[in-house]
Amino acid sequence: MRFLIVFSYDGSKYFGFQKQKEKKTIQKTMEQALYKIAKTEVKITPSGRTDTGVHALNQTAHFDLDINITADELKKALNAILPADIYVKKAKEKNNFHARFDAIKKEYAYYINIGDYNVFEKDYVMQLNKKLDVDKMKQASKFFLGTHDFSSFCKKRKEEDAQRTIFDIKIVTSGNKIKISIIGSGFLRYMVRNMVGTLIEVGQEKISVDQIKKILQSKDRCKAGAKAPAEGLYLRKAHYKKSCF
Amino acid sequence: MRFLIVFSYDGSKYFGFQKQKEKKTIQKTMEQALYKIAKTEVKITPSGRTDTGVHALNQTAHFDLDINITADELKKALNAILPADIYVKKAKEKNNFHARFDAIKKEYAYYINIGDYNVFEKDYVMQLNKKLDVDKMKQASKFFLGTHDFSSFCKKRKEEDAQRTIFDIKIVTSGNKIKISIIGSGFLRYMVRNMVGTLIEVGQEKISVDQIKKILQSKDRCKAGAKAPAEGLYLRKAHYKKSCF
Repeated sequence: MRFLIVFSYDGSKYFGFQKQKEKKTIQKTMEQALYKIAKTEVKITPSGRTDTGVHALNQTAHFDLDINITADELKKALNAILPADIYVKKAKEKNNFHARFDAIKKEYAYYINIGDYNVFEKDYVMQLNKKLDVDKMKQASKFFLGTHDFSSFCKKRKEEDAQRTIFDIKIVTSGNKIKISIIGSGFLRYMVRNMVGTLIEVGQEKISVDQIKKILQSKDRCKAGAKAPAEGLYLRKAHYKKSCF
Repeated sequence: MRFLIVFSYDGSKYFGFQKQKEKKTIQKTMEQALYKIAKTEVKITPSGRTDTGVHALNQTAHFDLDINITADELKKALNAILPADIYVKKAKEKNNFHARFDAIKKEYAYYINIGDYNVFEKDYVMQLNKKLDVDKMKQASKFFLGTHDFSSFCKKRKEEDAQRTIFDIKIVTSGNKIKISIIGSGFLRYMVRNMVGTLIEVGQEKISVDQIKKILQSKDRCKAGAKAPAEGLYLRKAHYKKSCF
């Protein structure tokens, strides 16, 4: 029986999603919980990985279970076993569902504090603690819209196709908080954090608005801004065709 | 030279304020930082202690330094040494100031999440994750106003005078969050958490509104509700006469 689950996690104490020997990761923790329920090894497949320290508001994954359990029982059993920083919001039986291949869009959010340093946000919001020219950042962000080769904004694996489509990018301020929301067809490694880091440098007038276009065209990672830190980044949602849910 | 500092801390990784052998506490961490600056032992005196896991938005403390340093330099030096979960917001030279004896009021806030469990709030907001009758809680809270013997709401030390005055208590809801703000002349150990725990039981209709009066009169700790957990509690501020600041 195939299940999909939607779950949130505070990534601050994890070495990212993917299983690694000796290291606490989201995948390992989730598979250990499933092992206790299924009494056999269960492999989970997420919509995509997240890196060390990155959070998820709604990550989606699938796995196959060969036991007699309802989706509701599964959700309860997982939440009873999982540590307090991972929480299953939804579980559903769904044959033929594939969390990675069926995802049509991904949505990320990045939070920046431009006000005074806040001890309570250190693992959850980038503590820039400096003002930014948000209007310039908004103008610059428009250059990301559409389909581009994002080689300048990723840690590229050899031969990987770096073409991705950005459907929407929104920058909203609320008091001393800036939220950058990005929806795309998919994201390369560090792509969101490199885009955000570059927008921050536009907001600091280290990079001009028009330069974004040139950076994209250069396909050269060295041209873009510094990667923004992990703690501000949240996988908000993987989007699927309606029929999947 | 006497200094006062106002500082915030995320108490989730600390065994409370007061120095204890072998345990990480706020006082110990702050005094270690001051030792590095003054090259000699410095004892700090706070407005009052906070317990394990309790946070402070604005704690006030004083100490004496025998070195040549301005308040601004002191603030910068402390923040450069202190870990990321303690932050000095203000430092000021102030002779004759006493952080405990000069405090005329204390203000605490307690946060409760009555919505779904939220992984990001586990160390910062009580995860009740159940609805409450907030109107009943508001009615019940009125009984705390004024001067009472709070023996029913504290972990009392022998011979301690349990009379305290509550000047204000406000319960405000915003979405699925409830914030309880309490201003009093001072608070006994666990007093805020016992008051909040009792109000929660009123909101759950385990204790009736009128019973609060009887619980106060009984001076019996066993009559009140269970102590609310530490993570929801914040020392918001110690109030001083204007002349102190």
